[in-house]
Order: sequence, then structure tokens, then C-alpha cells
Amino acid sequence: MYRTHNCGELRLKNLNQEVTLSGWVQKSRDKGFMLWIDLRDRFGVSQLIFDEKRSSKELFEKAKTLGREFVIQVKGSVIERTSKNPNIQTGEIEILVSKLTILNKSLTPPFTIEDNTDGGEELRMKYRYLDIRRNSIKEKLIFRHKVSSEIRNYLTKLDFIDVETPYLIKSTPEGARDFVVPSRMNEGEFYALPQSPQTFKQLLMVGGIDKYFQIVKCFRDEDLRADRQPEFTQIDCEMSFVNQEDILNTFEGLTKHLLSSIKNIKVDEFPRMTYEEAMSKYGCDKPDIRFGMELGDLNDISKHKNFNVFNSSELVIGIAVPNGNTFTRKQIDSYTDWVRRPQIGAKGLVYVRCNDDGSFKSSVDKFYDQKDLTSWANKTGAKKGDLILILSGNTNEVRSQMSALRLELAENLNLRNPNDFAPLWVTDFPLLEWDEESNKFHAMHHPFTSPKLDQLDLLKKNPKEVKANAYDLVLNGNEIGGGSIRIHDKNIQSLMFKHLGFSEDEAKEQFGFLMNAFEYGAPPHGGIALGLDRLVAILHGEESIRDYIAFPKNNSGKDVMIDAPSKLDDLQLSELFLKLKDKK
Amino acid sequence: MYRTHNCGELRLKNLNQEVTLSGWVQKSRDKGFMLWIDLRDRFGVSQLIFDEKRSSKELFEKAKTLGREFVIQVKGSVIERTSKNPNIQTGEIEILVSKLTILNKSLTPPFTIEDNTDGGEELRMKYRYLDIRRNSIKEKLIFRHKVSSEIRNYLTKLDFIDVETPYLIKSTPEGARDFVVPSRMNEGEFYALPQSPQTFKQLLMVGGIDKYFQIVKCFRDEDLRADRQPEFTQIDCEMSFVNQEDILNTFEGLTKHLLSSIKNIKVDEFPRMTYEEAMSKYGCDKPDIRFGMELGDLNDISKHKNFNVFNSSELVIGIAVPNGNTFTRKQIDSYTDWVRRPQIGAKGLVYVRCNDDGSFKSSVDKFYDQKDLTSWANKTGAKKGDLILILSGNTNEVRSQMSALRLELAENLNLRNPNDFAPLWVTDFPLLEWDEESNKFHAMHHPFTSPKLDQLDLLKKNPKEVKANAYDLVLNGNEIGGGSIRIHDKNIQSLMFKHLGFSEDEAKEQFGFLMNAFEYGAPPHGGIALGLDRLVAILHGEESIRDYIAFPKNNSGKDVMIDAPSKLDDLQLSELFLKLKDKK
Repeated sequence: MYRTHNCGELRLKNLNQEVTLSGWVQKSRDKGFMLWIDLRDRFGVSQLIFDEKRSSKELFEKAKTLGREFVIQVKGSVIERTSKNPNIQTGEIEILVSKLTILNKSLTPPFTIEDNTDGGEELRMKYRYLDIRRNSIKEKLIFRHKVSSEIRNYLTKLDFIDVETPYLIKSTPEGARDFVVPSRMNEGEFYALPQSPQTFKQLLMVGGIDKYFQIVKCFRDEDLRADRQPEFTQIDCEMSFVNQEDILNTFEGLTKHLLSSIKNIKVDEFPRMTYEEAMSKYGCDKPDIRFGMELGDLNDISKHKNFNVFNSSELVIGIAVPNGNTFTRKQIDSYTDWVRRPQIGAKGLVYVRCNDDGSFKSSVDKFYDQKDLTSWANKTGAKKGDLILILSGNTNEVRSQMSALRLELAENLNLRNPNDFAPLWVTDFPLLEWDEESNKFHAMHHPFTSPKLDQLDLLKKNPKEVKANAYDLVLNGNEIGGGSIRIHDKNIQSLMFKHLGFSEDEAKEQFGFLMNAFEYGAPPHGGIALGLDRLVAILHGEESIRDYIAFPKNNSGKDVMIDAPSKLDDLQLSELFLKLKDKK
Repeated sequence: MYRTHNCGELRLKNLNQEVTLSGWVQKSRDKGFMLWIDLRDRFGVSQLIFDEKRSSKELFEKAKTLGREFVIQVKGSVIERTSKNPNIQTGEIEILVSKLTILNKSLTPPFTIEDNTDGGEELRMKYRYLDIRRNSIKEKLIFRHKVSSEIRNYLTKLDFIDVETPYLIKSTPEGARDFVVPSRMNEGEFYALPQSPQTFKQLLMVGGIDKYFQIVKCFRDEDLRADRQPEFTQIDCEMSFVNQEDILNTFEGLTKHLLSSIKNIKVDEFPRMTYEEAMSKYGCDKPDIRFGMELGDLNDISKHKNFNVFNSSELVIGIAVPNGNTFTRKQIDSYTDWVRRPQIGAKGLVYVRCNDDGSFKSSVDKFYDQKDLTSWANKTGAKKGDLILILSGNTNEVRSQMSALRLELAENLNLRNPNDFAPLWVTDFPLLEWDEESNKFHAMHHPFTSPKLDQLDLLKKNPKEVKANAYDLVLNGNEIGGGSIRIHDKNIQSLMFKHLGFSEDEAKEQFGFLMNAFEYGAPPHGGIALGLDRLVAILHGEESIRDYIAFPKNNSGKDVMIDAPSKLDDLQLSELFLKLKDKK
């Protein structure tokens, strides 16, 4: 037996017990006549003590040879510390060691195994197995397990069934790029890895499963932006005989349960906001509502003067920065530079200082008088001491710019407290969006999303105006889930495919199995999928997902630890009926 | 709201309540003046009643149009049945319908949605979404969820952490064939789908995670034998600072918990048997010990006469078939034919009838006298009225033949009761097995399995003799799990790779990351992996796994429902830097 206790559980009540511990040497303090070692395992740290008087010479000398991260086993008795450490749970005791076994040696690790390590991102990824030993990473993985356990048990209690859907499925050219898997048994043919189990969960509803969930890996072969992973984990759910309200209530319940069971935070009923409202109030469809700074539409009160920049703009919007009048000119200029960066793409930034005496001072004083500026202040909700910042331009662009500016300001003003949680539902998304590039409609959510049923006529006549029975769950400015009521009628599904530019043959070829299924008594159904990686990160108070994934890939899709992907040998390729294309 | 209750929950206590139900039309019985419909959902069946007197004409006529598998919603009141059905839980009530809405129509399904369907395997697979509606399939999927939930919660309580390991990993030519995934971002390179998360779970142990589990899909591109799937689900576990005893106890505990919580069956301590013992007693390493018929070694008592068949055989073994003397000559002949089939490959079958008067009658009476036959009966444990069956030949072959015959006999004699559960551990597997074909050693378990530590010298001198710290969990003649204590020492791992025919470069190229990890304080560790598909099937009293998988593939690795795998378009191939090899 390697241990009687773990390194985190011994207390004063264990005094004088003979114990066996195993773990890693975290730290060694050698005072010459006395030597302390912090022994670490997943559960905590226990202090070991060796000394000239009480330890045998041989044991004492052996203890002096131990390096950082050596794996050792010790036997000894629990004694009371003379100087106690109130910061750790085992801080009142130490182990007077009587026997020491070195289970494995360690080279000096390439970075320190400490909460604040000296290891850079790349080095940590290459030695991820050492990185995971650090408390901060380990705690994140444990936290993730806690969240997924709570989710599973909550949904199981609600009669959801965890059903595993296949990973080797069919490639469809719609949407993002699939990862594909050549079939050795079927020459020239390929499987695809699922981007989501969407069609399978719908088939499970047709199959009468009624309530389905799965925590499942999904795959997207996209160019990786920062904090995107080619494989990611989805909490995938579907329900039958439900309308939108049923689904919102169910998953609002789940989210509240997570906040309360894991964070001990009670949240009231989630606010709901239409897509239109979110776009006009916050400039984006996943607003962070932990703070105000709502967008004020200044169109009606800014285009009556000779300021051509505004007059020629489709939309003029402003936000009030609380206490922003304390900003120096230099600070304001730096925000102007910030919005002009190509990633944001604004042309300039107009500001209005709201002075404490009720007067205004703006960068467009040449064109607007105090009365104009007063009405802007009213529209943006600016108070004395605030600063109004104004952007103008094309509606979509200016909204997106202002949304980015709003978040940047909030970040700098510490208004985005990671321990506050402000969930909301965004509803009534457009069903379709027109893509200028491909000159056709794209499904805003996905091709299986149901239009509002009272807009079926509109779907034939003016599809662009149709709203979908689709909804997103937003938490602290992140979309953590999205879903919809699905189409369960073959004719509506056909019309939808037609709008999306599928020929009848293409629709049949790719989704014939689903269309067929709709002919055999498909029930009304809908669902949602939540991104587990992000949900876990946000619940834990962070935004980056990478450290919540045990073995993440880098931005080139590589696992630098195991060195994947890698070359195949010719035999393997040949068995798959494949050749590499000649390099150009 | 689509329903106030599901179709399985209404009872007499709900009498006179106004309820709304939704579901599928299971069956319609039209008596002219009265019409009953069985309405089905996942939770059960409720009887609806329409009649000339109490229903409006319009409603009554509409009810008559309903076909099988139509999806409907009804409102009505709960009334007491005149003729009750004690076989279903809702059998005391029915719903007098006041409103009927057809939610979706259905074509006549291609097979009946009944427990005993008229649909053949292939048709059921093509319309799997209809097959899942059948109670028998649905119950299997629900049962699977129940098992996996219990497993997760049991392991979580024991401090195991569910850690997700990657699906896009590195291909290794060792072992079975990998499915591979071409990388678009890294020209000419491929990921592999994991055959198991073996190396990752070991790295998690090096990372200090201490106790890991995951219920995870694994992939093997093998030619599919019956009841093998290219993707399968594994309960994957690993523990640190443990010896074999710790692991056996932990997973014996899990198995007992499953048997008790799910089947309400208490099982005593699992028997343990060495590989050698299993092979000599049962002829195989996964014996079904629900019944006797142990193999009797007749070598010493059958080679002293002039019967050359035995004299020239490496091994002569017999088994006693209980009450087998009732077999007719024809029955015995048919077993002779059975063992002679190419799949079994025996040359012939010797029999000895044990008569009720204590005399023996055998097919080799010419060579052996009653004294010989008495000693055979003693060796095989045959009693009066039994039948001894004897095979001879090369040790490995004859054991495997006898094992197959033993199972076949037990099957026919109804000794394999699916509601009996007889688990056991098989231990002390050989570390290596010599492969005549490739003329090198293969790892019996896998290359990371630790030899018995007191045999390290033998590993250098005579590797073939070395036993591994490896164990299988066997249930009712099926290997449901296997595992081992792993190597955590770089030098032993190197020696192991050397024995397996890896050059130093190859070992480094393929498993360098693991060897490196062993240099930084790898703890002693070991684990196990259980096959969830089979475990679930066996616990449910069946041997075939296919119906415990929602969307299985057929023996050509095809999903005939979605028609996967399929062709890719040229653009997709080209983006992956691939060409199809010209067909020959």
C-alpha cells in the first residue's frame, strides 16, 4: 500500500498516528541540522521533518538528496508543528519521518511547479503534464468535472437520457468545414467528424426519446482564432412536445442550479431581450449587462446641423461613460486611436465632456450648441461628470464598433467583475441572413430552425423579414448557448432548403434521411447546445478556455506535446486509397 | 403547452381531471359506435376513448382518420375504464377526448412499432429512428444511461475526476489500425482518432490528477467481425500510488455496486484465477463460471495404449456433460460435426457414456478398458448419467476447441442463464507473446504494461517467461474490462520497446513524450478500461451490443440510415492536399 492518507487530510486529531504518505517533493528547506520537505499530491501539501537528533544519519542524508518533483513515499508519525501555518489545512501538523523510499527521481523541471510559474505558454504546453501539476490548472480541471457532474445529474433528474451519437458520420458541405476520415473499407469514401450531433438528436426525437442530452466532443476545421479549438465540448440537449418557453425555462433552471450549487449565487429570473433590442441597445447580440452604458440613438438629434460626418451617416450613436469627464485629453485620444485600429475600423470618435456645472464641452462645438449636447446627454443617460463618446457610420459597422468600445471601456473601468453573473436570453433572431459574398441566404442559426409559425406566409413572400424560434443564452457578454425550435414538417423544411440555395437533389442527397424521418410522425421538438469549455471558464471567473482543457491545441491546430498531427507512412496512405497531392 | 401529463402517469387518483396528452397513435380499435386509441410516448401508453354519444360528430370523424404513428395532441377528462387492463400502469383509466389536434401525420411505417416487429435487421437499421420507438430498443438506451450514470456517480464519490482527453491525436503504427484525419492546416500531416486514451491517462497521472475516469469513444479501423463496431465506448480509468490489489478492489466495488443498484443482485467477493489456471481449467482466458464442466487433463491417463490419435497429441482433454448420457447417437454425431467445422477445426470427438449402472461405453472401447474410462471419469468429474467428451491435439488449439464446445453445450443445456452473474478476475497474464508471423514479440496487453517487479531480471534474460501486472475482469464468459499496473520507469519502458522490436529512434519518435514524462517524477500508477457497450448488454441479459448503441454501423462500417461514409467533392480533397489513388 502506497499511502494510508493523502497529503491534504492530516490534522491535529491524527496526532501520534503512524502514517504513510506518497507524493511529490514540492520544496525542501535545509537548515543544516534540520530539513523540512513540503510533500504534495492532488489533495494538498503535508510538511515532512527530518532532523539530526531524531532521524537516523542514513535517513537524514538520503533526505538531503531529494530534488524538486522527486516522487517519494514516507512513513512517520504525525506531530504538532512548533510554528503553525494557518494558510494550509494541514498547517498544524508535520510528519516526523522514519522511513523514506524514493519511488521515482525527477530531472529539474523546465519551469517551476508553482501557482505563478516562470514557464511561458509554449513551454507549458510542451510539458503539459507538468503544467497540470500546478494548482491553478489542476483546480480548473477539477472545477470542470464538478460542473459537468452537476449538469448530468440535474438533467438526469429531469428525465433526460444521455444518448451517445456517432462520431463517424456523413460530411455535409454546409456551414463550417468538416474534419473528414477516409474509410479503408469503402474505397474513395470518407466519414466526417460531427460539428454537432444536430441531426442525430432530431432523429432521437423522431424516435420518441423525448428528452435527450449528451456532453459531447464536436469538431470544426476552421482557421483558429485566439481561444478557438478544433475540438470542443458541447452540452447538447433536445426535447419533444415543447415550445420555446418550455426550453427557456428548463435551461434557465439548469443555469440557476449551476450558479447556486457551484458558486452559491442566487439569480432572479433571467431578463429576455429580442435580437433587435440587443442590437440597438448594446450593438451586439450577446450583451454584457453587468453594467449600463447603453447605446443612445442620436440620429434624430444630430443630423440637423452642418456636420457632414453625421449627416452622411446611416447611424449616429453615443454612450455615456460614467465619470468619464476625468479622462485626460490623452486618454480620450488613445480611445480614438483604439477605435481607429483596423480590427475596429471606426473613422473617428466624437466626445462630449459633461461638466459638473451642467455645461458641455465637445469636440464638435463648432457645429452643435449646448442645447444639442443637452439632448444627447438625455438620450445617452449621461450625468454630470460623465463623458459621451459618439460613433457614426453604417448601422451594422457602427453598432459593432460601439459594442467593442463599450466593452473596452468597461474592462478598463473594472465594470466587468468576473464574480458577478448576469445571464439573459436573446430571442427572436432573424431566420435568414443575406450573404453579399455568395449572393444567397444563410441560416442565421442552422437550416433546421423553425420560423415563427405565424410568419409562414412571410417565409414564402419575404423570407428576409421572418423571425426564427431561436434563442441564445448569454452570460457576461458571452454566448454560452444557443438553440431553437426545429422544423418538424417536411414541407417547411423543403422550403427552407430552397431558400438556402439547395436544389431538391442536393437537399435529398445530404438530408434525405431527415426529410424521410419527418414523414413518419415527427413530433414538435426543439433544443439547445451550450459550450462547456466557455461555460466552465466563465463560471470560474475567466474568459480564456485553454486552461480548462486538459490537452489543448495551439493556434495551428497542433498538439506540441505529442507532436500531432504528423506524417503517415506510405502503407497507411495506400490502404486508404489516398495519395498526397504534389507540393507546388 | 403540449401536455399536462405524459402517457405513462395517469392513475385512478387523477379521475375527472382535465388533462392534455401528446404522443403517437400506437393502435386504433374502431367498433363503429366507439373508437379507442392507444396513445404512446416514451413514458407509457394511455387509452383514449371517442364515442358516438359523448363525442361531437366532427371529433368522432376526425378520430377515425388517425393512422398508426400519427402524432396527436388531445384534451379530455380522465374516466374509469369499464374493462380494466392490469398489464399496464394506466390500465384502470382512459381519457374521454374533447379536443384532438393532429400535430403531424405519418406514412405507414415500413415495419410495425411493436416489441416483436416484422422488420428485418437491415430495414430496422435504415429506419433506426422508427426502431428506437420500439419499447425493446428504447429500454436498452435508457438502461445504458442508467448504467453510465451510476458509474459516473460512483467514481465521482471515490474522488475520481472526469477529464476529457483529445480526439485528434497522433497516429502510431503499433497495434490495431488507426482511423486518421488529414490536417488542412498542416500539409501532408494527419491526426489519428484514439484507440484508447492510454498515453493521455498516463500523462494525467504524471500530472498528479491521481484518480481519472472518462466514458469515452474509441476507434479501431479493423475488419469488423460480428458484433464489433468501428467506434465503441470505453470506461477508462487510471489511479496513482496504487498496486494491483488497490485497482482490483476499486473496480470490484464498482461492479458490485452496478449489480446491486441496477440488478438488485448481491455478489460475494469475486474469485481470482491466474491466466494459467483459466487456460488449463477452461481453455480460455475469459471463462464462463456460471456452470462447471471444467476441463480434465487426460494426458497421463490416455497415452499408455495403442490409440495413436491420443499418443501423438500434445494434449488430451475431456469434459463431463451433466446428464449427457441421455444424448442420442445422432446428437453426439452432430457435436462431432460441430467441432469439425472450420471455425472450430477439431479432427474428431471421442465420447464416453457413463451408464447408470457404473459401466462405461465409449467410442474408443477398442483401445481403453473400464479401468481407463473410470480414471477419465474421475479426472473430468463425470458422474453416472453423464457424458464425457474428449478432444486432442496441439495444446493451444485443443484448449480453444474445447472451450468453444463447452460454451456450445452449456448454451444448449440452458446453463448460461442471463440473469445469473458470475464475475471473476483473471490475473498474471504473460507480458509478451511471440508472434510466429512477424517473428517478434507482441505486448499481450499493451506496451506500457509493467512486468511483475520481481521478474525484472527475467525480463532481460527470458522475456517470454515474464508475467505482467495485468488483469481482466470477466463476466459470464465475456471480458468486460482489462488493465494493468503501468511502467513508470524510463529504463524499463525502453527495454520493453526494445523487446517489441522498436529501434531507439522509433520509440523516441512515437512515444518520446511519454518517455520524457517519465523523467520528471512519474508516480507508480495503473488502471483499467471497461467496454461500456458490452457491459451494458450483459447486465441487461444479452450478448449482442448492437441494440445498446443508438446508431450502430453495419459490418461494412456503414451507417445505412445517413448513408455514411460518402464521397467528398474535389474542393474538399484538394484543401486537404489529397488525391484519390487511381483504381486498379
